[in-house]
Amino acid sequence: MVRTVKQPDIRKAEIISAARRLFQTRDYERTTMQDVMNDLGIAKGTIYYYFPSKEDLLNAVIDQMAGETFDRMQSVVDNAGGNALERIRQLIAAGNIADDNPEVMAQIHNPKNAGMHASMLAAAVKISAPLYARVIQQGCEEGLFEVDAPLEAAELILTSVQFLLDTGIYQWTEEDLTRRAAALPGLIETILKAQPGSFQFLIQQEHGSSK
Amino acid sequence: MVRTVKQPDIRKAEIISAARRLFQTRDYERTTMQDVMNDLGIAKGTIYYYFPSKEDLLNAVIDQMAGETFDRMQSVVDNAGGNALERIRQLIAAGNIADDNPEVMAQIHNPKNAGMHASMLAAAVKISAPLYARVIQQGCEEGLFEVDAPLEAAELILTSVQFLLDTGIYQWTEEDLTRRAAALPGLIETILKAQPGSFQFLIQQEHGSSK
Repeated sequence: MVRTVKQPDIRKAEIISAARRLFQTRDYERTTMQDVMNDLGIAKGTIYYYFPSKEDLLNAVIDQMAGETFDRMQSVVDNAGGNALERIRQLIAAGNIADDNPEVMAQIHNPKNAGMHASMLAAAVKISAPLYARVIQQGCEEGLFEVDAPLEAAELILTSVQFLLDTGIYQWTEEDLTRRAAALPGLIETILKAQPGSFQFLIQQEHGSSK
Repeated sequence: MVRTVKQPDIRKAEIISAARRLFQTRDYERTTMQDVMNDLGIAKGTIYYYFPSKEDLLNAVIDQMAGETFDRMQSVVDNAGGNALERIRQLIAAGNIADDNPEVMAQIHNPKNAGMHASMLAAAVKISAPLYARVIQQGCEEGLFEVDAPLEAAELILTSVQFLLDTGIYQWTEEDLTRRAAALPGLIETILKAQPGSFQFLIQQEHGSSK
């Protein structure tokens, strides 16, 4: 019998992709390490060598999702046309990690994963802020915004959006969420010194992604 | 032998206070439930009735600290004199939960407590934002600020300060922290439409509390 020995990176990526598919289709809680092994026809020693626990595997799935999201956002910054406001809309759409991965997102929102969740939100701010900063800088050159510190402004806005509107971190009522979401466009317009109404599209956006 | 039966609330508060003192003086990790029982001369059944685990006890200690902090802040809002900027300085000083409780704070910053930590930051924003909102409103009446949504502005600023400058949530470098801290006064002045320089005192503050 010939054992197939794969390159470690390829093997690792295969395991992550299989786990991601299983987490999405049959639910994280009910997926076992054995299910992932069966799916790929690999031995126990192989999967545990790369991922000592199912939680480590979930972390790797999240990293993969985050990487894909970042690539989509990077591509918007590099290639999308339009003025800064139009590109911000595209960046927001490209940055929506949740829609494609409802089951993994539900897992992240489980209170017992709050620590991982907070780290993930922080990581999302950290990787996306420099991309938003470039578009904010473009907006300043176009006369749409007036910002002294684009990177720090982006970090501040993204942190607020990520943490304040996240019901996994804050136990907000529906009323609280609605109140905040309603105030957000005006606050962002103030921070960027943008024309009133420029960010009203966010409210639409917010409702769209909270389904 | 006569067993002393205390009112549940009093008993519970006693346990929390003893645990807090022990966590501070002999370190959280090395304090056991047995230590707390010995300190108070209470039975195992009593302590575990109120606190099923040491983690629950730590949570209660944090709640107690947060309650005291809120009371100090409330007292500033009710009693302190001065204009809105002076009262904000006093609110910030009153809201500093960390200085009196270094050992408990170190515990909260332990990566394994990241979930509790995030919830605590969120709770801090939730309870202190309405107090800041009242002072921001005062500042609007005094002509120092111009803010349409004081509560939402307070939530946004506090969330950013709490999460962005927290090295337990974000793995920032010293350089990142310095860069953000330097940009913060200008960003807050923009959000509140305050005179440039009004919030420069924050940088002093930040250095003072990070020792």
